[in-house]
Formats: sequence, C-alpha cells, structure tokens
Amino acid sequence: MCGPHVHLALSPSRDTRLSRLRLVAVDEPVLFLSFSYPRHSQNESVVTNPLFSQVCNLANAASLLWHAYKSLPSPSNQVNWAGFYTRDPLSPPSAPQLILGPFQGKVACQTIAFGRGVCGTAAAAGATQLVRDVARFPGHIACDAASRSEIVVPIVAAGRGVVAIIDVDCAVEDGFDEVDREWLERLAKLLAEACDWP
Amino acid sequence: MCGPHVHLALSPSRDTRLSRLRLVAVDEPVLFLSFSYPRHSQNESVVTNPLFSQVCNLANAASLLWHAYKSLPSPSNQVNWAGFYTRDPLSPPSAPQLILGPFQGKVACQTIAFGRGVCGTAAAAGATQLVRDVARFPGHIACDAASRSEIVVPIVAAGRGVVAIIDVDCAVEDGFDEVDREWLERLAKLLAEACDWP
Repeated sequence: MCGPHVHLALSPSRDTRLSRLRLVAVDEPVLFLSFSYPRHSQNESVVTNPLFSQVCNLANAASLLWHAYKSLPSPSNQVNWAGFYTRDPLSPPSAPQLILGPFQGKVACQTIAFGRGVCGTAAAAGATQLVRDVARFPGHIACDAASRSEIVVPIVAAGRGVVAIIDVDCAVEDGFDEVDREWLERLAKLLAEACDWP
Repeated sequence: MCGPHVHLALSPSRDTRLSRLRLVAVDEPVLFLSFSYPRHSQNESVVTNPLFSQVCNLANAASLLWHAYKSLPSPSNQVNWAGFYTRDPLSPPSAPQLILGPFQGKVACQTIAFGRGVCGTAAAAGATQLVRDVARFPGHIACDAASRSEIVVPIVAAGRGVVAIIDVDCAVEDGFDEVDREWLERLAKLLAEACDWP
C-alpha cells in the first residue's frame, strides 16, 4: 500500500549497541536502508523506487535512528534526540549556519552558527564530535536540559563540503562510543550520496 | 543558549483533550507558538527571531504536536504518528503528489498521490478528514499497522492551494473529535501564513 521506505537493518542479535545496526545497501548509491522493528516484521519492506528528496529521506532516517537506538540496551535506549541540521542555504559563506531539519525528540534550536556548540564545531571542523559529557564541552548548547552526552557526525557531499550533520543526544553520560561513530559515519556517507543537497 | 523555538501552549488544566492545546500568537503572522512541557517549565521560551523556513518550522511543530498529545489523557496520548506531508514540487499539476515531511513516529510512506488514502483525500478535497476508524476508510494506506484512527488537515496557502497536510494517527479507534479538528485547523492556518512554501 505504501511507497518505498527508507530502511535500516537491525540484526536479530541485539545484545550490544549500535554495532547491531546494520546498514544494508540495496543499490549503490543508496539511501534506502533496511530496518526491522522488533515485533513488527511487516516493516521489512522491499525497496523499489529510491527518492532523493533530502527532507523525505532525513525524516525517515531520523525515525529509523530513534527507533533503532530505543530498541537497544542501555545506554543507547536513553537517546533523547536524534535528527539532522542542514547547512542553511540562505546564510552567507562568510558566516555559515546550520538550520534545523527533521528529527525525533523535543523541540530544538532553529539555527546554530558554524563553530558554536557541538553541532557547530562538527560542521566547522568537518569532523565527528563524540562528547561523553556535554557539561565539559565549551559552549555546549543546552537545547534539551536532559542531554548528558552527544555525538555529531558531519555529512560531507562531494564538491559541496559539509551539507548537514547527524546529531544524536543521550540522557546519560557516556552514551556513545567508537562503535556509534563508525556506523553513524557510514550512514553519513550514504546520505551524502543519496540526497539532493542544495 | 538556543535560538528561538517554535512554541505551542498547553494550558495548566489538562483534563480534556486538544482543547487544552492553546495556540499563542505572539506576533502576526506567526508560526512561533508557545509550549510548556509539563514538568519542564524551562521550555517556556520567549520568541525573539521568527524564521520562515518551512522544514525547520514543520520539524519543531511535529515535535510539539507529538509531545502535546502525549501529555494529554487517553485517547490523545495514544497518538502514534504526528507530522507533515508537503505538496511535491516535482510532481506535475496533472498528477500531484504529497511527499513526506518532518514527523515524529515510525517510518512512513515517502509519497502519496492526491486522492489516495486519508492524506491524499484531504489534499485533493482541500478539506479535513476525521476518520474515527481507518479500517472503514476506502483505500486507507496502512503505513503503521498500529494506527486505528486518523485526522488529516490541509494547509492551504493564499494563491497556492493545498501546500501541505497535517497528519496525526492514533493507535485506538475514535482518537480524534471536533475539538482536534478545530485546533488543528487553527494550526494549519498559522503554518500556512508562516512558512516559505515553494
């Protein structure tokens, strides 16, 4: 009945953290990843018609990230925000800023200047920021007071630089590790190739 | 520390349903509504710098709708999807379609043709569809098998017709009534005036 889905795969074994979040590339370049909700096998849909709409894909990817983390053991299931900021096409090259994109969680900052906070630092540096304790990060932007740790991964499109960032917050300290970094960086690479970045 | 928020107001009394979701217009035309999370008074932020970015505003509005419903008594707190589809600017006028926008909930259909299912019917008719039992709606699109009732409200922009729809699903039958219709139609009107629709 539905159009195609964005998909992300959770392997059957769920005894560790994001290592169990397998990205399944059906056709390269692909943004359609396969995801199985625990107890909802009907969601293992077949990808038939890839779309490159940035908003559509980021909206589904945010949902998939959120539910994937929520289905994992602690601390991953303590994730309290998962989503995207994109580079604001209206901001001048001399003062670029991020603007809020699709996400799951509580209301968030609308704009963040490159260089500000964890998101802005990742965007300006073009490098993942893995922050085990946000209270120790200079200039941390406390949008949700519940956040205690955070990982921000830049999405870098060929010839365009940083076009967006993946942002995931956790309500406990030390919510993310190198496994999260590895897989979120793979997701960032897929999304970089699979969306119609402006 | 943050930029301005999109806001929606919950009145202190929460003994009924969406009637307690007050939309607060700070400056007209306004998309920034005031929202107080129960037990999170720090989120009653002041609006300082309205943005007209469609994606940014719909992303925060989806979050606010989701958390507002979740904070209300049953059946409202059984809402399992809240978000937006926008008119796909790439679809031909002879065969318009909706494309997935920001939302909260599980992964959703990427595209829906005008006229198909509850969302497509609301878009084609330009009229709210309040469906107390989705199983009885001809051609209902079952993206999330958990959905039992649904309300879809068109967003109509001056001179542009239907530019988007608000879609809220509930996991129980009869999840919405005329009060939901009234307030969601007010929200649709605010968003129609407050976003940079293509």
